Amino acid sequence: MAGALAAAARHAIDDKTKPLGSLGDLETWAVQLAEIQGTLTPRIDRARMIVFGADHGVAHEGVSAYPPQVTAEMMRNFARGGAAINVLARTNGLEIEVIDVGVDADLSTLSELVHAPVRRGSRNMLHEPAMTDAERDQAMTVGRDAVRRAAAAGVRAVGLGEMGIGNTTAAAAVLSALTGAPPAETVGRGTGVDDARLAHKRLVVARALTCHVACTTPLAILGALGGLELAAIAGAALEAPHQSMAIVADGFISTVATLAAVRIDPSIRSFVFCSHRSAESGHTLALDALGARPMLDLGLRLGEGSGAALAIPLLRSAAAILSDMATFAHAGVSREST
Amino acid sequence: MAGALAAAARHAIDDKTKPLGSLGDLETWAVQLAEIQGTLTPRIDRARMIVFGADHGVAHEGVSAYPPQVTAEMMRNFARGGAAINVLARTNGLEIEVIDVGVDADLSTLSELVHAPVRRGSRNMLHEPAMTDAERDQAMTVGRDAVRRAAAAGVRAVGLGEMGIGNTTAAAAVLSALTGAPPAETVGRGTGVDDARLAHKRLVVARALTCHVACTTPLAILGALGGLELAAIAGAALEAPHQSMAIVADGFISTVATLAAVRIDPSIRSFVFCSHRSAESGHTLALDALGARPMLDLGLRLGEGSGAALAIPLLRSAAAILSDMATFAHAGVSREST
Repeated sequence: MAGALAAAARHAIDDKTKPLGSLGDLETWAVQLAEIQGTLTPRIDRARMIVFGADHGVAHEGVSAYPPQVTAEMMRNFARGGAAINVLARTNGLEIEVIDVGVDADLSTLSELVHAPVRRGSRNMLHEPAMTDAERDQAMTVGRDAVRRAAAAGVRAVGLGEMGIGNTTAAAAVLSALTGAPPAETVGRGTGVDDARLAHKRLVVARALTCHVACTTPLAILGALGGLELAAIAGAALEAPHQSMAIVADGFISTVATLAAVRIDPSIRSFVFCSHRSAESGHTLALDALGARPMLDLGLRLGEGSGAALAIPLLRSAAAILSDMATFAHAGVSREST
Repeated sequence: MAGALAAAARHAIDDKTKPLGSLGDLETWAVQLAEIQGTLTPRIDRARMIVFGADHGVAHEGVSAYPPQVTAEMMRNFARGGAAINVLARTNGLEIEVIDVGVDADLSTLSELVHAPVRRGSRNMLHEPAMTDAERDQAMTVGRDAVRRAAAAGVRAVGLGEMGIGNTTAAAAVLSALTGAPPAETVGRGTGVDDARLAHKRLVVARALTCHVACTTPLAILGALGGLELAAIAGAALEAPHQSMAIVADGFISTVATLAAVRIDPSIRSFVFCSHRSAESGHTLALDALGARPMLDLGLRLGEGSGAALAIPLLRSAAAILSDMATFAHAGVSREST
């Protein structure tokens, strides 16, 4: 049935007033959106950035160029609308929802945020699993609920962003455990650590992998080595088929969390768009593990959902091409003469 | 002075609440827009697609997969809002102006178009120059006037698109003459010719180059081997500095016309953004000649300005980052701890 819809969408695009195949990737995305929405006239009128914030026990190992309190400071910046993702969402006609899924601070007075903290930061993965099974599942439910809420509001695509000092370390650990790639390939400079701290960060990830070598399922890996915002992103991605929702992954952390979700349930893969190729060194490995070619390649390495926010207009455009362009017959345009 | 503004813009970006350099190409574009607009708070609130349509004498040599009347048919499609560029402009919040600069049909009843026909199609470059000097200059003035009109309306960026059956042949001839690259490298499949017609198209371009070998200045090359819409695009690009306007080139034809303009006046180069890398084989050669890295790489080969329409939201986002993001001091966010 899905195959029949894709074929019909393909045929509809070939009837549009343009040379065959001349809109390249837009045509591929339009067909994918038709399948996701189950219609030959897909639309992305409303789209939403969902940004999950959480702290990390492993941040106290000195793996970031920024101190841990920056997570809470940036959540306040999101609430006031001054961060990059706020600006990019406003500029590109996207809604934004910022969710505290486990920041190590009391943010309850910030009415602009959604408050769903599981605990004040994940545990230090060098000493114990980053999350208990119950904490991980609760964080995943926060993500699922966010996608359900978006769908109920008429949103047709969600970009999945994150904020959490220390989370490139967690994502690198998850990626190594999921793929078998060594820390030398998965650990990068994150927000910008120097050579000495990069070497230390790789050692921390190697030690964490040794601690939790018994974790082999994607769910167990996510819980032991991930973080609350990674679990929330995975939960959000897993909800996609239930809500006919297009999921737009962002950079390294968001993509690794989405990869974990795809390993948990491979049927969600066709709902996922990978927005960009980040400058963070392990991102290409994560994209390859998903078999994804990124939509953009702009040298971004910010997170927050910034790349997803820039890519959603391309998906909105792809949907509109299929839904709104005239056909040769309707427009009275001649076809190829050969 | 321009250098001082760029340095100030760079410094302002480094004060924004994000790791240094983490917005990649967006930061580069923001600095370029600051220089173009002469301000540390550049904006692209209004942007406009300008689509120039014209016919080509050389189209009667059988170089296209489509019959020549498709130019006029597509102009009617633009007027009714059914073409790809209409859909992409609407979806991305762009104005659109479609200009008849020399279509071989009477389109005067279409009130949605701007009517500025120089003649009913260019001359056949195998027999005479495609345009006389006066015709070429008149077409360039049509382009300049379009950018002046846009600036007067408050538009801060224009995407330059085109429609003209036969114009990949003209653009290939101009590119060969400007760069010395042989037709085997500059002539591609355009809207989709087969192998036999591709070989024929290369012969046509080779013959045209022989006919006009005496033309060596970029202005003479544009007149002898170009077309009315190529001349109009070149004129539009040449007007950029006078209007502090960002110019967004589209695919093969648009980029070649912009390259001709840059060869006429190298000082306009810093006003030009190259929106994408087209699937048309000669486009990369044209981008290389401009020293440009394209913003997008989506396998497009449609023209009409389609790639420029998809790229302008990225420029709008870049400008907003510089103008609207909070600084570390203002947001109370801690800086790097190292």
